[in-house]
Amino acid sequence: MTIASEFTVDTLIDARWIIPVEPTHQTLLHHSIAISNGKITAILPTSEAHTKFTAKQHFQLKDHALIPGLINLHTHAAMSLLRGLADDLPLMNWLKDHIWPAESRHASPEFVKDGTLLACAEMIQGGITTFNDMYFFPEAAAEAALASKMRAALGLITIDFPTAYASDADDYLSKGLAMRDRYNGENLLSFCMAPHAPYTVGDETLAKVLTYAEQLELPIHIHLHETLNEIEQSLTQYHQRPIQRLHNLGLLTPSLLAVHAVHLTPQEITLLAKQGCHVAHCPTSNLKLASGIAPVDTMLAKGINIGLGTDGAASNNRLDMFAEMRLAALLAKGSSGKAEILPAYQALEMATLNAAKALGIDALTGSLKPGKAADITAVNLSALSTSPCYDAASHLIYASGREHVSHVWVNGDNLLNEGKLVTLDSQELKAKANYWQGRIKQ
Amino acid sequence: MTIASEFTVDTLIDARWIIPVEPTHQTLLHHSIAISNGKITAILPTSEAHTKFTAKQHFQLKDHALIPGLINLHTHAAMSLLRGLADDLPLMNWLKDHIWPAESRHASPEFVKDGTLLACAEMIQGGITTFNDMYFFPEAAAEAALASKMRAALGLITIDFPTAYASDADDYLSKGLAMRDRYNGENLLSFCMAPHAPYTVGDETLAKVLTYAEQLELPIHIHLHETLNEIEQSLTQYHQRPIQRLHNLGLLTPSLLAVHAVHLTPQEITLLAKQGCHVAHCPTSNLKLASGIAPVDTMLAKGINIGLGTDGAASNNRLDMFAEMRLAALLAKGSSGKAEILPAYQALEMATLNAAKALGIDALTGSLKPGKAADITAVNLSALSTSPCYDAASHLIYASGREHVSHVWVNGDNLLNEGKLVTLDSQELKAKANYWQGRIKQ
Repeated sequence: MTIASEFTVDTLIDARWIIPVEPTHQTLLHHSIAISNGKITAILPTSEAHTKFTAKQHFQLKDHALIPGLINLHTHAAMSLLRGLADDLPLMNWLKDHIWPAESRHASPEFVKDGTLLACAEMIQGGITTFNDMYFFPEAAAEAALASKMRAALGLITIDFPTAYASDADDYLSKGLAMRDRYNGENLLSFCMAPHAPYTVGDETLAKVLTYAEQLELPIHIHLHETLNEIEQSLTQYHQRPIQRLHNLGLLTPSLLAVHAVHLTPQEITLLAKQGCHVAHCPTSNLKLASGIAPVDTMLAKGINIGLGTDGAASNNRLDMFAEMRLAALLAKGSSGKAEILPAYQALEMATLNAAKALGIDALTGSLKPGKAADITAVNLSALSTSPCYDAASHLIYASGREHVSHVWVNGDNLLNEGKLVTLDSQELKAKANYWQGRIKQ
Repeated sequence: MTIASEFTVDTLIDARWIIPVEPTHQTLLHHSIAISNGKITAILPTSEAHTKFTAKQHFQLKDHALIPGLINLHTHAAMSLLRGLADDLPLMNWLKDHIWPAESRHASPEFVKDGTLLACAEMIQGGITTFNDMYFFPEAAAEAALASKMRAALGLITIDFPTAYASDADDYLSKGLAMRDRYNGENLLSFCMAPHAPYTVGDETLAKVLTYAEQLELPIHIHLHETLNEIEQSLTQYHQRPIQRLHNLGLLTPSLLAVHAVHLTPQEITLLAKQGCHVAHCPTSNLKLASGIAPVDTMLAKGINIGLGTDGAASNNRLDMFAEMRLAALLAKGSSGKAEILPAYQALEMATLNAAKALGIDALTGSLKPGKAADITAVNLSALSTSPCYDAASHLIYASGREHVSHVWVNGDNLLNEGKLVTLDSQELKAKANYWQGRIKQ
């Protein structure tokens, strides 16, 4: 019958709790999400949903919380193959003696494809549906994202010195632009200009990056004020701090995504806020590399939009947004002396909607809202370690972990089902990790 | 035959990696641990072990690392029933408006038994074999520890004001001493004098605590310099900082276990080191309650013995020593600006041997060494999120989590087998958690 078919949906998910992030600070009890053609079509009480809809696929998640799929706002996914290769070393030793030599020996399209696939598997298992990537050979990362059916923002990485990927700034830019042209029609992919950092990219290249960013309406994804050393070096070389330099070059706009933003003066915080720049806060990486603790409390007070990122697996060593949400909340409290700073709902917002805003894809994802893509993560809160449960939002941030993620959907496609990967093959990825471990260890 | 029976052991565990903690900084490859009568009898290459021993139980853990069972050096186990009841609140609101009212309404032997059982289950699942507890009705906690077959140090809790447990300091002390007398013969139990904190226990009571501690040779487990407020209050009331006050009373000895130790002057750090006091570092709780960041780097440089604790589940909200090891390592680096501080091996040592030393039970547990009790945790490192694996010690601290714990033994008894609880019943504990949630929510 015509009437009945109007109420047939592709997927119906019933859950004990739904935290949609939009509207903010809300937990819905015993609600369901209806999905058709990859989009959320309705969120309504489960009793109503069962009367109203017939579903081709029906998930009944009675102990679970549904949240928007998590967005990893800064990573170098392929570096999963270097996870734990070197730790507990000063930043420059770590980079110069271990990471850069390994990269220069091994970085290739094959390395990036395999490493990104491994990272995608880990991220899907941990409830991440979108990642913002910056690495060499981004077309290989694009292939991995498409194979896994994750959403990805791919960086058009640009550095002023040669690597296995490109010979000079223009070569990076032209390769990046070609990559964007090739994948521009893909529903799951978006793009960022990705000049690596102020200390690896000169003024001339930054000016070109800005031109392309404006012309193509792309965010600019850049490491910024990660270490004191970066700032001192800039003072020596450019007689100004990196943020001032970017401001003078016209880069501080609502398209700028500043990654790390650890060392900031009050004036710089005010400037970033005034210019509408976004920040990717990477608390684990900032601690592990001893970069420092970002002034999140002050940035929030000034209204800066902050998302969360894991950074690469070589400096974390997990691609785990549950860990980042928790650490961001804890660290903001401990470093500010205010326990009420960065409450649970806000940590979740940083890991979802705020990140989508920074990537310019918030009309598409970042919250559970009819009309948006069905990018959804289900978390089972029935473990002993999440019992009792007085408040699902609190448990998501402070008690649960990625090991409690049971289901993941991206654009309505089920990528994780009862903890099992759907689009990727664990055994094959394990074998690839072993293969690379053998090669890299030599 | 007589000769053969000499070489029959109760349990043999083969593992890909063994990190014994003693000797320090060592990872053994393809070794086995032989166990008889609850004790480790040998650690040797697996190939030799298979020739030499016949085992009643044989575990072949080909993707696993064996580590000493983790020791949670500070917790209030029963507070697991208050997990997530209130979060993101300033300390005094949290205590006065939420935690204390809930405790005064509900704390009872039944509450403590059920809450501690729930905590034991969570701790066993997370590879913890010993916990140092401070809570009301410690005999109920003792019963829970014995039922779960975990090792526990039970605090003879002492406070100067009345609670449901005791009416005044002498009542607390006599109940605590009676508890100790009752359980003194138990192999798995040890005891600490546990005056709650300098701000809840007066000089007269502290003097009595010291007398009993000396007489019975017990450690003194006390919250110390957790918040700035505690120090200011002491300056007003006693005209001295709490550490100075304890020193004047004679409490700063190698028997003292100072919990938190967040706010310390350089002189106080030197004094604690000189007096041989131990510290229980609780990084998550210190951040979550916005107490601050303990000066671990400086304390380590001065040679203070530091163990790690989760604190209670109401202020963490996990009883997860993997999270504490990781956060301790990260935070020490980020707050000191030195990435080489607190490397992976040292974090593991803090969560095992150092804690055993603080509790005075290091002859018995805290490392994998022939003659010590077989308190052992196995961690499966074959997940995608722990692949590749260049360094098992690094992965244990930075990449793996409690969800990778597969097996736990305490005193040779298997408490967790392939992730399943052996001594406790998950369904029963779940039902109890629900029961208390219903009562407490009202």
